[in-house]
Amino acid sequence: MKKVILDLATTLDGFIEGPNGEIDWCIMDDDMDFDGFLSSIDTIFYGRVSYDFWGNYQPEENADAEEQKLWETVHSKNKIVFSSEKRDDPNATFINSDIGEKVEEIKKQGGKDIWLYGGASLIKTFIQLNLIDMYRISVHPIALGNGKPLFEDLKEKLNLKLIKTNTFKSGVVQLIYESTN
Amino acid sequence: MKKVILDLATTLDGFIEGPNGEIDWCIMDDDMDFDGFLSSIDTIFYGRVSYDFWGNYQPEENADAEEQKLWETVHSKNKIVFSSEKRDDPNATFINSDIGEKVEEIKKQGGKDIWLYGGASLIKTFIQLNLIDMYRISVHPIALGNGKPLFEDLKEKLNLKLIKTNTFKSGVVQLIYESTN
Repeated sequence: MKKVILDLATTLDGFIEGPNGEIDWCIMDDDMDFDGFLSSIDTIFYGRVSYDFWGNYQPEENADAEEQKLWETVHSKNKIVFSSEKRDDPNATFINSDIGEKVEEIKKQGGKDIWLYGGASLIKTFIQLNLIDMYRISVHPIALGNGKPLFEDLKEKLNLKLIKTNTFKSGVVQLIYESTN
Repeated sequence: MKKVILDLATTLDGFIEGPNGEIDWCIMDDDMDFDGFLSSIDTIFYGRVSYDFWGNYQPEENADAEEQKLWETVHSKNKIVFSSEKRDDPNATFINSDIGEKVEEIKKQGGKDIWLYGGASLIKTFIQLNLIDMYRISVHPIALGNGKPLFEDLKEKLNLKLIKTNTFKSGVVQLIYESTN
C-alpha cells in the first residue's frame, strides 16, 4: 500500500512561511538526501494553486546541474491535482470530488509512496480526512515570531508517533512521525 | 560566566499552551534527565505571575517521592523575580529596573547556569535584550492547530545554532540551540 507523506520545512516556532510568504530561511542542504526522498515516491499530490506555481516549474537556464536534475526528477512523477476545477492537462490528473475514496484507491495501486506537496488548504483537508500516513517535518534553526502556521483549524489534536530524527549540518532537524489516528 | 537557559516544551506546531492554557499534552519522561538539568543550574528567573504560581509551589502530600524531591530541588535554587512590583520576599530577590545590566551582573557572578523559567512576557523581554544564551526546546509529538505561540512579537528573526538533539522514548525531541546574536 502506498503511503501519503507530508514533507515540509518549518521554523522552530512552527511557521511554514513568514507573514509575507517569506521562505528565504529555508535551507536545502546537500546532506539532506532529498534525492533519496524523491526516489522513494512515484506520485505527487498538489492543490491547484501549488500545482499552477510549481507543477510545471522549469529552473532557469543557468541553474546548476543538480537543480536541473532535481526538477527533472520531480516532473517524472505521476501528478495529481485536487481542485474544484476540471481541467484537461496532459501532465496531471485533476480530482474534483470524493477525495477520501479516490486517495484510498490510489494508495491501493501499490508501487512507491506519495508526496503530499501542499498547499495549506489541501494539507488541512488531508488531515481532516485522516489521509496522511507520515509526517516529515524539517525544523529550521530560526524563529520568525509570526507567519503562516504549520497546521490551521485542526478539528482535533493530532497525535503523532515519532519514528526517526535526522540532523543536518545546517542545523535543520528532520522529525519523522507516523499518524496514530 | 553563567549562561541563561530557556527550557520549554512546545507542540510540533510551536505552541507552549493550548488556546485555553492547556498543557495536558506535556510529557515528563523519566529518561529526560530533568534532574540533570536542575543540577546544572543554581538560579531561576521568573516573571511575577509565574513566580506567584510556581515559585513556592508545594506538591500535594500524596505526591510520589520523585515529585517531592524535584520540587525540593527547585526550591533550593536562588530565585530572582522580574517585576515592576517591589516586594520583600524571604524566598526571592525582586528586580524592578535595568534588567539588562542586572542580568549581566548576575551572569558574571559565576557558578552554575540560570534557568529562565518564564512566562511569555519575560521571555520576550529577554529575547529583545539578547540575554538568552541557550534554548532547550522539547518538541512534543502532537499538533494543536491553535494556542499560545512559543515566541510572540519578535522584533527581528531569531537565528540559532543547533548544538545537540536528545530523543526520548515518549517521542519528545529536545532541540538545544545557542544564540547567534
